[in-house]
Amino acid sequence: MTDSQQPASARTTLKRGKDRAVYARSEIREVLEAGLIAHVGVVTEQGPIVLPMVYGLRDDEILIHGGVANAMLRGGRSADVCITVTIVDGLVVARTPLHNSMNYRSVVIRGEAILVDGDDKFAALKIINDHIAPMWDTARPPSDAEFRQTMVLSVELTEASAKIRGGDPIDDESDIDGPYWAGVLPLNTSWGDPIASADLRGDPAIPDGVIQRAGTNAHPNG
Amino acid sequence: MTDSQQPASARTTLKRGKDRAVYARSEIREVLEAGLIAHVGVVTEQGPIVLPMVYGLRDDEILIHGGVANAMLRGGRSADVCITVTIVDGLVVARTPLHNSMNYRSVVIRGEAILVDGDDKFAALKIINDHIAPMWDTARPPSDAEFRQTMVLSVELTEASAKIRGGDPIDDESDIDGPYWAGVLPLNTSWGDPIASADLRGDPAIPDGVIQRAGTNAHPNG
Repeated sequence: MTDSQQPASARTTLKRGKDRAVYARSEIREVLEAGLIAHVGVVTEQGPIVLPMVYGLRDDEILIHGGVANAMLRGGRSADVCITVTIVDGLVVARTPLHNSMNYRSVVIRGEAILVDGDDKFAALKIINDHIAPMWDTARPPSDAEFRQTMVLSVELTEASAKIRGGDPIDDESDIDGPYWAGVLPLNTSWGDPIASADLRGDPAIPDGVIQRAGTNAHPNG
Repeated sequence: MTDSQQPASARTTLKRGKDRAVYARSEIREVLEAGLIAHVGVVTEQGPIVLPMVYGLRDDEILIHGGVANAMLRGGRSADVCITVTIVDGLVVARTPLHNSMNYRSVVIRGEAILVDGDDKFAALKIINDHIAPMWDTARPPSDAEFRQTMVLSVELTEASAKIRGGDPIDDESDIDGPYWAGVLPLNTSWGDPIASADLRGDPAIPDGVIQRAGTNAHPNG
């Protein structure tokens, strides 16, 4: 794994907010580890389509799965995708509204989506599942039919960039002494307490992976 | 405003999870009102690109703004866009991992992005700004230069659909009496308390729109 500060290609070089652009693989991975869902874009005959999906991380690739990926790829002209993961950390309130912003962590990955199959698909599905709550090993193992119905795709993190904004608003010097407030309204995202299914029978144990998430920050920072 | 239960075009008809598909304009608007950011996809010469953006709602249109929109349109082949807004409400833990899901509210809008200009642009910018925290009227009004630098685009809600999932996992009948737990781990997203900017001088009042958000659910449900 390289940890270069240089963009891997011209098309991943950020056009705006260059001071907040990050190309280091370690920081890109940190954002992806803290994220929950990805927005995946493909081009169809009828134009672009963007759908939310769960994902997982392995070495230098992002893994996505499910019937959604399937439908997107079948409807798409190619497997060329853009996968974007965004975490909103707060609202940045400036002294004038057009200087307002958000504090956020976002990663944009562009590349070809490659089909993952065979034994590797099993490993990939576990990684995707456990990204949100590790419970693969404590649940009923997938049946052959369930396994076959699920599609897994992999995209390399080669053409990836992160954009991170934190801290105070940046106001005009002439506004600093003005009568207007400036600051940040933080956005807190946390897991609540597990709620048992209405059809639960007996007294099965809540998976450790679920218990460990309860009450914690859903988007840990660094 | 029509409130039809029928999809407006074939390409907005959901292929999966039909039981959770919603085409009623009122429900689509409810999700968009509760959302914070949109993921906007366009097609460029180098393939699809998906970027996070703030947005606002007016009658039958969604409004997006900023230099990002500008760059996307300049780099794009056309103004054909897909705007997706997703709210994650919880993790749905089934008795077997490939039945896991998320509880979520999501809207997908496809259409042409039209430039908003003149006096209408001023009104549109206020709507976008106040979608997240109404403070346009209590801040320093935008200068002519700030106003000119900002681009606003509008997309009609004609080709829009919502997908909403709530409640318990749906497990196989044969798994119900098994030894595995099933339920939901809710995801709570709320605004914290406002934090004043380090460069704040004097004692300006925190805007009412910010105070009103503090401590509240950031994605109110219905």
